[in-house]
Amino acid sequence: NNEFDDDGDLIICRLSDKRRVTLQDFRGKNLISIREYYKKDGKELPSSKGISLTEEQWSTLRKNIPNIEKAVRKMESHTM
Amino acid sequence: NNEFDDDGDLIICRLSDKRRVTLQDFRGKNLISIREYYKKDGKELPSSKGISLTEEQWSTLRKNIPNIEKAVRKMESHTM
Repeated sequence: NNEFDDDGDLIICRLSDKRRVTLQDFRGKNLISIREYYKKDGKELPSSKGISLTEEQWSTLRKNIPNIEKAVRKMESHTM
Repeated sequence: NNEFDDDGDLIICRLSDKRRVTLQDFRGKNLISIREYYKKDGKELPSSKGISLTEEQWSTLRKNIPNIEKAVRKMESHTM
């Protein structure tokens, strides 16, 4: 029961009505794509607004989640 | 010892030579930005290649990390 977009990429999750995380197979390499989609002729297609990460870049992002969380919390405490 | 880019945004981490995760304060709201930078006149500036997530979208992404990991591993096992 996997869901695929109109380009054949696996939709892993939706971040908003238009934004999705998908997994693309690009020339034998996995790309984790965080991207905004738009509708055209009844199809939903990836827009240029987004970024496709290599597995290495994704892994670096994942390892930095505690740092990202810390920065978000610190910023919040400054603005409140 | 925080590092900021030439737009004044906090650089949280680098995903590659050109790609960065930054924290932007956009009209009082935090945006977690995953974006490619380019050099111009000695400055490093954010390009249009990337996406800026709201805190809610970031939180959804974070919760879906196990799903993303699972999808990556599944794809790998198919291509090997």
